[in-house]
Amino acid sequence: MRVGNLPGIRRLPVYLDILRKLRESGTETVSAHILAVEAGLLVSGVRKDLEMTGATGKTGVGFSIDSLVASIETFLGWDNPYQAFLAGAGNLGSALLGYEGFRNHGLHIVAAFDVNPGVIGRIVHDVKVWPLDELCGLAQRLHVNTGIITVPSSQAQSVADLFVTAGITRIWSFAPEILRVPSNVIVQREDLAAGLAELLVRSARRRVKI
Amino acid sequence: MRVGNLPGIRRLPVYLDILRKLRESGTETVSAHILAVEAGLLVSGVRKDLEMTGATGKTGVGFSIDSLVASIETFLGWDNPYQAFLAGAGNLGSALLGYEGFRNHGLHIVAAFDVNPGVIGRIVHDVKVWPLDELCGLAQRLHVNTGIITVPSSQAQSVADLFVTAGITRIWSFAPEILRVPSNVIVQREDLAAGLAELLVRSARRRVKI
Repeated sequence: MRVGNLPGIRRLPVYLDILRKLRESGTETVSAHILAVEAGLLVSGVRKDLEMTGATGKTGVGFSIDSLVASIETFLGWDNPYQAFLAGAGNLGSALLGYEGFRNHGLHIVAAFDVNPGVIGRIVHDVKVWPLDELCGLAQRLHVNTGIITVPSSQAQSVADLFVTAGITRIWSFAPEILRVPSNVIVQREDLAAGLAELLVRSARRRVKI
Repeated sequence: MRVGNLPGIRRLPVYLDILRKLRESGTETVSAHILAVEAGLLVSGVRKDLEMTGATGKTGVGFSIDSLVASIETFLGWDNPYQAFLAGAGNLGSALLGYEGFRNHGLHIVAAFDVNPGVIGRIVHDVKVWPLDELCGLAQRLHVNTGIITVPSSQAQSVADLFVTAGITRIWSFAPEILRVPSNVIVQREDLAAGLAELLVRSARRRVKI
């Protein structure tokens, strides 16, 4: 199995978006150069990212868009849609429930959970909000192995514990808290301030390539 | 000026969070090893990230927490608080307005904008929502050079154009759209699906170091 690089992996969804739009407009092949222009990246970096997925192009022709989409989706595991729970149906949770990109990327959020009686029972972007204490019972009935955490920082660890008890092994957390989980569970922590850090350093050194 | 690496820069806010918590608990010095354990990272990577900021530790003692916080904040430019506008006061925009981490990181969102009459005039997490067509006028009165885009994809480019007209040179966009801006404007695009990609590839290859 090829070993990837994380910044490159984070760029793959961008290429998928561009490829899907090109395909919708009737285009059948694409060069790394066009992808680089559309994504605002260097062509050498785009070539490296595409190589990671195992995609192969033809000299003078470029990549077939269909097979490039298939290579990226297979590499990311997005050709097998999977089901997820979301805990915390506040502003951020609701924004994620409404994010149209996730279904394209194989993620299907099947239920949301909250402790707030004003939110429980509501349907947010077609997903029902359940009481948090029904999470374990529902996890046993549905085939769910991914959990998304959008609760306030102070509740993040207890929700992570609940996910682990429910048999969830992939946790995607938007809480700043660093979570303690057993070694068989993978936590992907999204720090909203990370992008801010990147923006500021890039703008301070815009003439320096980083 | 030292040249940084983007994945390392994205990790710096994590170290700041940990350092501030340690300081609150009365701790004065910290080793790269402790930071690595707390952040769930390899100590070699943590050392490299800290070196990037110019911080220096003492053998057998580690880093002074105060000076390490100062080094990271100076490197990130977070010792100079700056003002930002946010366009799109829906779920994601409201979540960002309420994100407690930003003020710690020197970001002060001074006004939000929307086109929805049901939202205009409301106060969301202490920030007033203005009609979008007042953006340029307000930008001239306030010293604002950063704009955050949390509008739907279809409106992202027109909001970016408005920001550019208003003299904003740093744009942090949460819309999947790739934005066209003049070369003096920096766009930091956050793709919510990027973290999802990273989680899936990590869980598919959990025994492979990437």
